[in-house]
Amino acid sequence: MTKDVKALALEQAKKYGGKLEVASKVVIDNREDLSIAYTPGVAAVSSAIAEDKELAYELTTKKNTVAVISDGSAVLGLGNIGAEAAMPVMEGKAALFKRFAGVDSIPLVLDTQDTEEIIQIVKALAPTFGGVNLEDISAPRCFEIEQRLIEECDIPIFHDDQHGTAIVVLAALFNSLKLIGKTIEEVKIVVNGGGSAGLSVTKKFLAAGARNVTVVDKRGIINASDAEELPEHHAAIAQVTNLDHQSGTLQDALVGADVFVGVSAPGILKPEWIKNMAEKPVIFAMANPIPEIFPDEALAAGAYIVGTGRSDFPNQINNVLAFPGIFRGALDARAKKITIDMQIAAAKGIASLITADELQTTNIIPDPFQAGVAEVVAKAVSDAVYSKVGS
Amino acid sequence: MTKDVKALALEQAKKYGGKLEVASKVVIDNREDLSIAYTPGVAAVSSAIAEDKELAYELTTKKNTVAVISDGSAVLGLGNIGAEAAMPVMEGKAALFKRFAGVDSIPLVLDTQDTEEIIQIVKALAPTFGGVNLEDISAPRCFEIEQRLIEECDIPIFHDDQHGTAIVVLAALFNSLKLIGKTIEEVKIVVNGGGSAGLSVTKKFLAAGARNVTVVDKRGIINASDAEELPEHHAAIAQVTNLDHQSGTLQDALVGADVFVGVSAPGILKPEWIKNMAEKPVIFAMANPIPEIFPDEALAAGAYIVGTGRSDFPNQINNVLAFPGIFRGALDARAKKITIDMQIAAAKGIASLITADELQTTNIIPDPFQAGVAEVVAKAVSDAVYSKVGS
Repeated sequence: MTKDVKALALEQAKKYGGKLEVASKVVIDNREDLSIAYTPGVAAVSSAIAEDKELAYELTTKKNTVAVISDGSAVLGLGNIGAEAAMPVMEGKAALFKRFAGVDSIPLVLDTQDTEEIIQIVKALAPTFGGVNLEDISAPRCFEIEQRLIEECDIPIFHDDQHGTAIVVLAALFNSLKLIGKTIEEVKIVVNGGGSAGLSVTKKFLAAGARNVTVVDKRGIINASDAEELPEHHAAIAQVTNLDHQSGTLQDALVGADVFVGVSAPGILKPEWIKNMAEKPVIFAMANPIPEIFPDEALAAGAYIVGTGRSDFPNQINNVLAFPGIFRGALDARAKKITIDMQIAAAKGIASLITADELQTTNIIPDPFQAGVAEVVAKAVSDAVYSKVGS
Repeated sequence: MTKDVKALALEQAKKYGGKLEVASKVVIDNREDLSIAYTPGVAAVSSAIAEDKELAYELTTKKNTVAVISDGSAVLGLGNIGAEAAMPVMEGKAALFKRFAGVDSIPLVLDTQDTEEIIQIVKALAPTFGGVNLEDISAPRCFEIEQRLIEECDIPIFHDDQHGTAIVVLAALFNSLKLIGKTIEEVKIVVNGGGSAGLSVTKKFLAAGARNVTVVDKRGIINASDAEELPEHHAAIAQVTNLDHQSGTLQDALVGADVFVGVSAPGILKPEWIKNMAEKPVIFAMANPIPEIFPDEALAAGAYIVGTGRSDFPNQINNVLAFPGIFRGALDARAKKITIDMQIAAAKGIASLITADELQTTNIIPDPFQAGVAEVVAKAVSDAVYSKVGS
């Protein structure tokens, strides 16, 4: 299958020469059309915006356009392949923005991996766009780039690799909690993986009310007692997780845990460790394409709910459930930022797409092609903006 | 008329919220489509390009996409109105690229007017695009920005404000010379206007074979004898023009001249000065919307051929005749630069669209909506690339 898909992808790229085209919404078939869409007519539109910049949101493509920007430093599983080679991924992402949420999206790949330069370039480009989706930028540079841009730009900046999957995992958690009959405040959650995705999952969970989260990386449980030896971003997360200062391995961390979230490596979760978890254990094994444990093995070991990143098992955690609707909602509300509240609202919106009747251990999360996903997410996100404005 | 057109332009901008949309050329309606257009299939396309960057021209939108980049510092007649307000003009330009030459074009407006920063940003963006059309950047910054980018990028960089109109004026000159029965080498040409357009017209004429060109600006005839007092770009042009070291006013320069090209100010050319020109004087009065002299007045004073920038008189010199076909040809030939030879080829291509039978003093240049203009220009431009490669 994978080989066929790759051959088909190459064939498609050759056939179309890239997946996107820029279309004119206006007809230009005679001199009058030309004088309206271009000079002299266009001067009136420019003059109006020169007097009030906010009109750019009504009178230009800024209204509905998001940049998908990458430096090609951490592309899929391919690593640091550079700007040109990152382009097909960014085009695909842009195609998804349009397909799922009607968002016009422009892929831009940058021939620099210098943090300051990337910040400067995105800031300079900001007037063109209603938002920026950062993509496939390597850690830890991605943290500073995103954080600085959020602070320094007046349009939403969102690094989907950090937040997209994390928001969908949170949605999956919300529905899993309904099935196991516990609250987010009371469950013990173990996040395996101290990279950008793991830290982002952890922060979303905490923001959504989780109180008992333990993060484990290759060196074991991240523990505030080791703060001096930890890298900066781990030292920070240690302050708000593992409040009992537990030390040890993943196996140790899992004793009594309700939820395992893996954003780590293939086959790393042993079936016998699941047996030591709490009743009705929930396993989100997100390593892709080979998960931390395969669903059949996890279920045999006693797992109650299993989700993965794969489309060939139930409960696929797919970030395409999140990012199109999140930007749709942010654009609709002319949000200046995508706050954590908006992200949690998005997760709740995704979870709400599975009705109480439909909810079961093999159906905790909607299919990406289920009708109305982006609309529901967008509504949840824009409502979160408005409720904030009103509060 | 102009007021109506402006009202219509505002109405259009409000209705559409910008003139462009980004469309996906590929259908994504199920999981298999998704796995081809995005992960995991897309990895094969990225890997192929990572091994051979040139494949970006076959497998990505780079093949057919040009950026239209402005800093908003010299927009139409509106001046330095900034990035957001420049956007409607860039969108219009992008719509014309698509309409006339099938070129996908992405408008980018920059929130900086620092020369070095603009150069750095465009260089970093270059992997995304097959070419860059610089637009509405003020002089003299535009000269250095364009020149440096031509030197430092491996894709065509073209500042249309400098070259576009100049190429169409050259096309108009080629056909005018057929009607007055003289060669470009023998005619005396006066260019009134020492700004970027005037200097570009002058350079095109010289490159096409003109030997007797005199440039006049507000302070009078530009003369190498005054080199020390001249700004740098004028001192340079003085070395290759006005070889008789004439001094004086525009009136003085025009005595015996065959051709007047005005890229200057409304009403600046007096009818009585035309009477002192050579037989069958050719007048290109390009100031817009009020030309250096109106056609009826010029013809009454003895002008043989008159062209302006306006669509309501014969012989409209309109840069839309040039830029779409030039970039079409450059993309088709995967040119790394748009050389002066390619620009002269474009002018000859435009001129060739008026057949010997059609050629008359009121029909020296095609209408922008004449079928096949961009195709003919593109062919001329790409032929110029290939003949250079072969030579």
